[in-house]
Amino acid sequence: MTERTLIKHLAARDDGPVTVSGWVDTVRDQKKVQFVVLRDESGALQLVNPRNDETADIADTISNLSNGSFLTVTGDLKHDERVKLGGIEVKLSGIDVVGAAIPETPIAEDSSVDKRLDWRFLDLRRPEQNLIFRVQTTFEHALRSWWVERDYIEIHTPKLMASASESRAELFEVGYFEGTAYLAQSPQFFKQMAQPAGFGRVFEIAPAFRADPSFTSRHATEFISIDAEISWIAGHDDVMRMHEELLVAGLTAVKEKHGEEITAAFGVEVTVPATPFPRIPLAEAKRIVADRGYVVPRADEDMDPEGERQIAAYVQEEFGSEFVFLTDYASSIRPFYHMRHEGDASLTNSYDLIFNGVEISTGAQREHRIDVLEQQAREKGLDPEELGFYLDFFRYGVPPHGGFGMGLSRVIMLLLHQPSIREVTYLFRGPNRLTP
Amino acid sequence: MTERTLIKHLAARDDGPVTVSGWVDTVRDQKKVQFVVLRDESGALQLVNPRNDETADIADTISNLSNGSFLTVTGDLKHDERVKLGGIEVKLSGIDVVGAAIPETPIAEDSSVDKRLDWRFLDLRRPEQNLIFRVQTTFEHALRSWWVERDYIEIHTPKLMASASESRAELFEVGYFEGTAYLAQSPQFFKQMAQPAGFGRVFEIAPAFRADPSFTSRHATEFISIDAEISWIAGHDDVMRMHEELLVAGLTAVKEKHGEEITAAFGVEVTVPATPFPRIPLAEAKRIVADRGYVVPRADEDMDPEGERQIAAYVQEEFGSEFVFLTDYASSIRPFYHMRHEGDASLTNSYDLIFNGVEISTGAQREHRIDVLEQQAREKGLDPEELGFYLDFFRYGVPPHGGFGMGLSRVIMLLLHQPSIREVTYLFRGPNRLTP
Repeated sequence: MTERTLIKHLAARDDGPVTVSGWVDTVRDQKKVQFVVLRDESGALQLVNPRNDETADIADTISNLSNGSFLTVTGDLKHDERVKLGGIEVKLSGIDVVGAAIPETPIAEDSSVDKRLDWRFLDLRRPEQNLIFRVQTTFEHALRSWWVERDYIEIHTPKLMASASESRAELFEVGYFEGTAYLAQSPQFFKQMAQPAGFGRVFEIAPAFRADPSFTSRHATEFISIDAEISWIAGHDDVMRMHEELLVAGLTAVKEKHGEEITAAFGVEVTVPATPFPRIPLAEAKRIVADRGYVVPRADEDMDPEGERQIAAYVQEEFGSEFVFLTDYASSIRPFYHMRHEGDASLTNSYDLIFNGVEISTGAQREHRIDVLEQQAREKGLDPEELGFYLDFFRYGVPPHGGFGMGLSRVIMLLLHQPSIREVTYLFRGPNRLTP
Repeated sequence: MTERTLIKHLAARDDGPVTVSGWVDTVRDQKKVQFVVLRDESGALQLVNPRNDETADIADTISNLSNGSFLTVTGDLKHDERVKLGGIEVKLSGIDVVGAAIPETPIAEDSSVDKRLDWRFLDLRRPEQNLIFRVQTTFEHALRSWWVERDYIEIHTPKLMASASESRAELFEVGYFEGTAYLAQSPQFFKQMAQPAGFGRVFEIAPAFRADPSFTSRHATEFISIDAEISWIAGHDDVMRMHEELLVAGLTAVKEKHGEEITAAFGVEVTVPATPFPRIPLAEAKRIVADRGYVVPRADEDMDPEGERQIAAYVQEEFGSEFVFLTDYASSIRPFYHMRHEGDASLTNSYDLIFNGVEISTGAQREHRIDVLEQQAREKGLDPEELGFYLDFFRYGVPPHGGFGMGLSRVIMLLLHQPSIREVTYLFRGPNRLTP
């Protein structure tokens, strides 16, 4: 390994010799002195080279440096509060260009999102982008730790399937030897399978695929789905309770580790939500929104994005909460596998979770009674024959269970107040984007 | 939530009323007394019901129980060392059949693997299977914790690509709107992209896809790949050092949490390996194997499975190690992106890791010099045009870097001495298996 010191650790070091590696952010090549701002994954540092006979070789190298080139430098660390960049600088004694860049910068500060995505590996060098993925790492690890500490089992469900897992409309087909496979639109069937398998409580964070032709800020053809499924629930409220505790764990970790950086980079204060999150039945939410002057213009009983923003504003005003569970969606707009209310089959034991005005998750208690499940599938026009392998999960004994699926990029987008999931996805995939 | 006590926690509880949930393992329905063995994700428990007038309803329910049915029971916990099953039993006061099974058992102890995979959700109820996935959970979480503690960034690379990531031979094609996409055979290109992006050190655990028509115990068309990639290495030995420390962290966690259970279930002693693992250049390994009487029958310079078993046996005898790095593979049998030896282009800065006689991983330093990389691609008959998006990663500045990819199921299979990855995969996918 190159014995380098991360830039963020320099401030705590005494003056003296150091080795630092990173890439060239800017060069100021002046007559008497040269300055280079070097960046690594942890920060930015000013390098300085006063021109004289002894430093002529270094001066030549600096004069020929392209922005973006990767260097390893040695030099003398000096604390000097006059240096704007962190109050330290390194006076160079050696410079090694280990990965030179061509003198061309395909993207600039004001490039369009699409142009930046074309050059995503350069776009990701921005400190804000680096922070986004460190935040995501911390968030995911906090979720997994919360689950693991509670004896959840991690599962890896297959992404190649013999049938659709959700609606057939948004299905990708894969040539599979002599036949056809489909890409999993969600781990729904297979995380449910863990319940009759006696796993008790399971989780998975993995890609899911939707052949969705839309170009909104919230949709992608490939996205990371955060899923959990638990046995022995009494209703969907048990799922919500797990869900909100999990989010508290994730946001607490993010706030502790990156709260200040996030405020500095995005002007956003990370808030750890109070529990329980407000819970509002969908029908009541629509009345509240109507009272605020917005009538959801939909023929079915669903919410729409503006309705979600309105109910979020209401919840923020009334309860000071960034989160709200909308509950008890109509059976007509929910999948066949959602359990319906006892005594009122028009409503389901389900919820959507809204975060800062956008839906990030759907959860529900699942119907586990095979006769009811089969009936509901038929009512939705599905062929119980094609669903045979899934329906079998319920014939040989199964506990009551439920869970949720949540879009990782949506959570990160809303947490950091970003305008689109494109900004928080490592490599976005959409109807007309498959590269890089 | 059903307020149940996990079976593993009962032994530590005082005698008295308890509620337990699980599924019926066996029923012994005798004239004077009935016994049910109930299982949950944590263990097995004997339920007892002495027949008399007061218990007639419970007796009726038990007489009609099918194996596999899920129950919630209440009763009186009693410690009694005469009870073989853990020295405790619960005398029933109530029984609620919440998920009845049909009276049919599609698989038995002696069913073929293929038959068991057809009914994987029932197969997974076996305590050994449950243990496998708890071990896997612990192992993965220990790896991720090791990385996160060292400031690695977790990435989610796309599985939909516009080109092949490895050989075109084993590529799955996906209909993608009006065009074609391919399923990622590895995250290779995209984890390398994190290096010019300035991420420093990254990891990912995610599915990868190979249209591999083989039916061996070690191959699947969809598998979970454990990947890491790090900047600023001096050579492949730096990758190996990270790799072995990571495995020590994973195996230490597994041994601490499940060591005794693993020994009880599989007769296997989990060994935390000493570091450094033995490192043997491939050419030397082949001489050693030849000295043991086995000449690898291959025209190219590669090892074969029997050669790997032989060198593993040698390393076990000589060094007491279950692991060995075979290093410096010939350029002729390595991908174009492996860096070659300085001064000897016939060898690469690469390695394979062998665990208990089977290859579980390939690692390497990557070629980061664009002119050399382009030349090596051309030599391998690849079209630099088609690789354009990947080659661009190296034009705008890039640090020296390297990493590895490792098959999760192979590690778990070899750790637990299982005969096939089919036994340790949640839902196996092969050329003729897409269901359930």
